[in-house]
Amino acid sequence: MKTFAPRGTTEQIEEGRVFAPKFDADGLIPAIVADAWSGEVLMLAWMNDAALAKSIETCEAWFYSRSRGALWKKGETSGHVLRILEMRVDCDQDALLLRVEQAAPGTCHTGRASCFYRAVSLREPAGHTLVLQFKKAERVFDPAAVYGGE
Amino acid sequence: MKTFAPRGTTEQIEEGRVFAPKFDADGLIPAIVADAWSGEVLMLAWMNDAALAKSIETCEAWFYSRSRGALWKKGETSGHVLRILEMRVDCDQDALLLRVEQAAPGTCHTGRASCFYRAVSLREPAGHTLVLQFKKAERVFDPAAVYGGE
Repeated sequence: MKTFAPRGTTEQIEEGRVFAPKFDADGLIPAIVADAWSGEVLMLAWMNDAALAKSIETCEAWFYSRSRGALWKKGETSGHVLRILEMRVDCDQDALLLRVEQAAPGTCHTGRASCFYRAVSLREPAGHTLVLQFKKAERVFDPAAVYGGE
Repeated sequence: MKTFAPRGTTEQIEEGRVFAPKFDADGLIPAIVADAWSGEVLMLAWMNDAALAKSIETCEAWFYSRSRGALWKKGETSGHVLRILEMRVDCDQDALLLRVEQAAPGTCHTGRASCFYRAVSLREPAGHTLVLQFKKAERVFDPAAVYGGE
C-alpha cells in the first residue's frame, strides 16, 4: 500500500511534475523546516508515508518520531503548531523543505527559536576536543511551563 | 576509531559545549546547506565521519555519496565549491546546518540555484496524482558544459 506515486526514471524524478518521494530503508524522508518569513532554518525532522500524507492534507506539520516510533503532530503538546505555507521537494525527491508559519515562537523543545543554536568550531583538526559555541541560544519560551516539566 | 567525542547524557548533548555528533546506522549525518547571505536552503547532503572531519578542517564542504559509496568534495568537478562560514549543530546533535558562500552560483547538479526548485501541491488528499509546480527553476549554469555532458 503505497500512498505516493512510484519512482520513475532519473529524468522523470528530476524534471517531471509527478510527486514520487523516496523513503529510506526505514520508510522515512527528511524534512527541513524553515520560517517562511525570515528564512531561518528551524529544525530537521522525519516523515513517514502517513506523516507526509497528513501534512499535505492539513497543511500542518506532522512527523514520525524515530525514538518513540510514532506519528506526532508538531505543537500537539506545546501548541506551537507549524502551518505549512509551501512544501518543496529536492531534485532527486528524497528530501523536503517546509516553509512554515509558527503559531507561537520557538520550535525547539529546549525553548529556543531554532534547534540550531550552537556553532561548531572550524579550521581545527577534528577530534574529541571540538567545542561548541552558543549562538542565538536565548529561550523564547519556558519548556517546563509548555511541556509540563520533565 | 571514532573521530568525534562519544555521546553523553541528554543534558550534555543538548546543553553542553562538546561536539558529539550522532551518525545513523549507516554512519551518516544529514547536513542542510544554506546560503550564508540570502539564507536560501540550497541542498541536503550526507556526511560520514571523514567528510565531517575534512569539512571542519578545510572549511570547504565534503560529503559522502550514498549512491557512489564515496567521499566527494562539492565542486570538485564543477568548481562550485562551498566555503563554510559557519557550521551549526541541532539540539540532539544528529543534524548539521552549513552556512556557506558559493564559489559560483548554482548548487544543484541540474543547474539550478537550489535543489528545491519544485513545490508540492497542498490541501489535497495525498495520492498518486500529486503534482509538482516548478518554482525558481531557471538554470543558472549549463550542467552539460560544467559536467562535460551526460
